Amino acid sequence: MCKVGLNPPYFNQHETIVNMQPPNILFVMYDQLRFDYLSCAGHPHLHTPNFDRVAAMGVRFTRAYVQSPICGSSRMCFYTGRYAQSHGAEWNGFPLRVGEKTLGDHLRASGMDCWLIGKTHMRADIEGMERLGIPPDSIIGVRTAECGFDVWVRDDGMVPEGPDGSYDGRVSPYNEWLKEQGYPGDNPWSQYANSGIDEEGNIAPAWLMENADRQANVREEESETPWLTDRALEFLDQQTGPWCAHLSYIKPHWPYIAPAPYHAMYGSNHVPSPLRHDCELDDPHPLYGEFAMNIIGKSFQRDKTRTKVIPAYMGLIKQCDDQLGRVLARLEETGQIANTMIVLTSDHGDYLGDHWMGEKMFMHEQSVKVPLIIYDPSLRADATRGTTCDELVESIDLAATFIEVAGAEVPAHWIEGLSLLPFLHGETPPDWREFAISEYNYSTTPAARKLGVSDKDARLFMVADKRWKLIHFEGGLRAMLFDLDSDPDEFIDLGNSPDHADIRAMMYERLGRWGRRQSQRVTRSAADIEAMRGKSRRRGIVLGAYDQGDIDAELISKYTGRAKADYRS
Amino acid sequence: MCKVGLNPPYFNQHETIVNMQPPNILFVMYDQLRFDYLSCAGHPHLHTPNFDRVAAMGVRFTRAYVQSPICGSSRMCFYTGRYAQSHGAEWNGFPLRVGEKTLGDHLRASGMDCWLIGKTHMRADIEGMERLGIPPDSIIGVRTAECGFDVWVRDDGMVPEGPDGSYDGRVSPYNEWLKEQGYPGDNPWSQYANSGIDEEGNIAPAWLMENADRQANVREEESETPWLTDRALEFLDQQTGPWCAHLSYIKPHWPYIAPAPYHAMYGSNHVPSPLRHDCELDDPHPLYGEFAMNIIGKSFQRDKTRTKVIPAYMGLIKQCDDQLGRVLARLEETGQIANTMIVLTSDHGDYLGDHWMGEKMFMHEQSVKVPLIIYDPSLRADATRGTTCDELVESIDLAATFIEVAGAEVPAHWIEGLSLLPFLHGETPPDWREFAISEYNYSTTPAARKLGVSDKDARLFMVADKRWKLIHFEGGLRAMLFDLDSDPDEFIDLGNSPDHADIRAMMYERLGRWGRRQSQRVTRSAADIEAMRGKSRRRGIVLGAYDQGDIDAELISKYTGRAKADYRS
Repeated sequence: MCKVGLNPPYFNQHETIVNMQPPNILFVMYDQLRFDYLSCAGHPHLHTPNFDRVAAMGVRFTRAYVQSPICGSSRMCFYTGRYAQSHGAEWNGFPLRVGEKTLGDHLRASGMDCWLIGKTHMRADIEGMERLGIPPDSIIGVRTAECGFDVWVRDDGMVPEGPDGSYDGRVSPYNEWLKEQGYPGDNPWSQYANSGIDEEGNIAPAWLMENADRQANVREEESETPWLTDRALEFLDQQTGPWCAHLSYIKPHWPYIAPAPYHAMYGSNHVPSPLRHDCELDDPHPLYGEFAMNIIGKSFQRDKTRTKVIPAYMGLIKQCDDQLGRVLARLEETGQIANTMIVLTSDHGDYLGDHWMGEKMFMHEQSVKVPLIIYDPSLRADATRGTTCDELVESIDLAATFIEVAGAEVPAHWIEGLSLLPFLHGETPPDWREFAISEYNYSTTPAARKLGVSDKDARLFMVADKRWKLIHFEGGLRAMLFDLDSDPDEFIDLGNSPDHADIRAMMYERLGRWGRRQSQRVTRSAADIEAMRGKSRRRGIVLGAYDQGDIDAELISKYTGRAKADYRS
Repeated sequence: MCKVGLNPPYFNQHETIVNMQPPNILFVMYDQLRFDYLSCAGHPHLHTPNFDRVAAMGVRFTRAYVQSPICGSSRMCFYTGRYAQSHGAEWNGFPLRVGEKTLGDHLRASGMDCWLIGKTHMRADIEGMERLGIPPDSIIGVRTAECGFDVWVRDDGMVPEGPDGSYDGRVSPYNEWLKEQGYPGDNPWSQYANSGIDEEGNIAPAWLMENADRQANVREEESETPWLTDRALEFLDQQTGPWCAHLSYIKPHWPYIAPAPYHAMYGSNHVPSPLRHDCELDDPHPLYGEFAMNIIGKSFQRDKTRTKVIPAYMGLIKQCDDQLGRVLARLEETGQIANTMIVLTSDHGDYLGDHWMGEKMFMHEQSVKVPLIIYDPSLRADATRGTTCDELVESIDLAATFIEVAGAEVPAHWIEGLSLLPFLHGETPPDWREFAISEYNYSTTPAARKLGVSDKDARLFMVADKRWKLIHFEGGLRAMLFDLDSDPDEFIDLGNSPDHADIRAMMYERLGRWGRRQSQRVTRSAADIEAMRGKSRRRGIVLGAYDQGDIDAELISKYTGRAKADYRS
């Protein structure tokens, strides 16, 4: 892989690592992992000692919001350090436009490799690549199509098929590997790893949630999370660094079903009551009402669904925790733990029946808030180990953080996030953000059609500070508002409350400010602009001078002298 | 040049042209031509019969706003059909990011060539091209660097030089041509075409405005406007169509000086009193105050400056009009006038001392409003010939208009403007825009430093409807507001008026809506989204089903069957 420039000065700057090894970053993402389904985050039944251990080694952020509560769009925000409105990939399958800079572009420029192990949900902008003549089989073309990563292994963790064919036509290395292990058929991902067996010996697909409590018909060590962990361990054994590796698991994302013994670790006694209130369905916001009353919402409103699904979801998380233990052990064995930042996070949460909903794709905490734990091996981070940080953090902050770790200045004309290193080092930047933003585009969903909202208007925006959360909807739908202080469970929608007009106005002022932000001035940095200031005059653009008395004679000297001929007629 | 697809169906659709020739578009731009310096727009002294003739053949738009009142940024809006905040090229010399689609991309896809004859002010995104591996000498590379145009001739009309070297290092074909005609020295553009001769036979550069009333030391037929017109006539003689040609003159842009006889056509008796009021300088808005009191503002506050400059400016416009006559004559001689749309416009205006200011770069009508005249040869346009249209029109509407003329649907996921064809055909679209937007970035100017505003905040936004004009400033500066009904000259700033808080709130609501618009979802069209709706379920994403009773059995059939082996341990 290309290595440009010198070793990043991160450790030199911070005088932290005894052996002065260049830094690595292990950027671990789980898919659909709720912020509160970890023991370090207070889960009463789920014991996740490896997550907890990283939290004890680092900082756990308690207000980490994703910039869009759906896989593809959220990930494009993580990988570009930019809001969804800025990069445009606002839903699954919306290609990331060619020319958007990614983590890989930024990190490789600092001499740090940037590898993918697992899922990205990236869709390449094939039209844009063709238009710009980028050969898909060139290094640039492959990286462009893979969201800037070099691919150790890419597996998006989804091999569904239906009457109209397969979901995305992509070959799944995991599915191929299962076949090599002897699993039969074209799609053992679906028919074995994500299915159980019913009492008659038939495949019991986990797509039907009645099967979620069955044991997946796959050997545990051959299930998806260990398989990807094996790939990660192979990676760790072959690196010399500096590297950033995005280890990106599909689990605990649906289909909800766990292999033994995880399928049987949790039961109905571990399923909490749903966080929901009758008042939520009393004249609900039109879009919220549509989501709560679709087939997913209705399913998760039934106790039988939650009783089947949540124990499986917990089992999958428990398995993730065990596999994280294997990764941590390998980092320790190889000594890499001394110079490898570890980040644990998710692309969004899961309602699991709270607020009468399933899935994600809306703006309650269960959907839009994610776990975020960062271990920084540097000595400067010793002061914060085992602490939590309650500041408003956005997923786009990771790109900024990683760029700083790689030794570069964060290019604010591209990256809209802010480096989290100050928090890891016990400092709170004086002008830290006062609100977080998240967005969701529902233009491809039936709800848009039902509500008669156009493709351009089928969007919502969350503006949240530590107390208030406003949700704005385009297309003429009213806003929602929650007071997280008096109503931390977000049951009481104050979107129509006359007493809260001032709060809504304040939140709209913030949303307005955000909407006017400068996200596309990507070809000129602040330093470029500083260098441009006042320079045109000395390059001959002499404006406003009536005569030489108005300016230095030097400015006009190139233009003066004896005319060599008269061309006036 | 590449011709893709069939002839555009524009004329077939509209059944307008007897000979069924495919359509052409002559898109003429003048630089810094004020909206009211044409006789058809009511100028009391300037007689512009050729502009007027096109106005009589077509429609003159009286409320045409540019999206940024500075050359480079304004032009990038015209050429992309997108707001400055969307394409990011917010000031002169800010490169248009690679991957932005231009008129040329859109028109060539419909089989219409797209040629440049003159100025664009385009700066290529060299870093982006390198990053994406686009060879600068490939057709794609050249077009990317030239803002999507094929270059008949490019001349940005500026060859200034100063103590620190030349302005942009670009070779000017016009300057080279002057040398071929025998004009001496390295820079006859500067020392002859844009200078006079003083009483001692010395070069009297027009950069010093005391020289604006001199006769330019260039033969009229060798001055810049006729030279570019000659190139346009050569172009017209060699085309078979369909083509769009951007004939883009530098004049009447400064340096203000005209060749004979135009230098002597107008005098101080043709110079109007400045449109300004003492109250404008009474506790002025901080940024407006900086601009009015800089060297340019101060110069144009003096009568002697205006008395020298305005007659020269008028002479340059008169010359443009005469040269337009040559173009019209050639279109007639060749018959192309029957199937060539003609558009006359400018990239911004010129204060010329109004509002105590010179230049442009602020949001009064003199700066941000432009002439816009469109002749549509189709029969459907017969109903509107010689009329004016007072609706709010934006410069980005031309790209939409041209795409429709070329026979394609306007791709609303790229193009933010709206086609003007309905107005040309006597229709007013029911949901026409209710406000226009313009933006200006002053981050490279000394004013930003003086006001202590950061590079990201040194921006202003105009929101204007037919009555109100709000100017919002980032960086904590207060807004300005004008009532164009009661104060058409924009003397009375209501930005602090307590009586107008509701109006400001209304305008801010509009600005907020605009800021939330979807400008980067460029990889998915509305049709793509329509096609995606509800499709994932039939490709295997079976969400929300508890058991088969919840769904069609067909949806889950791929997943069922007899398990071929038990892998559960």
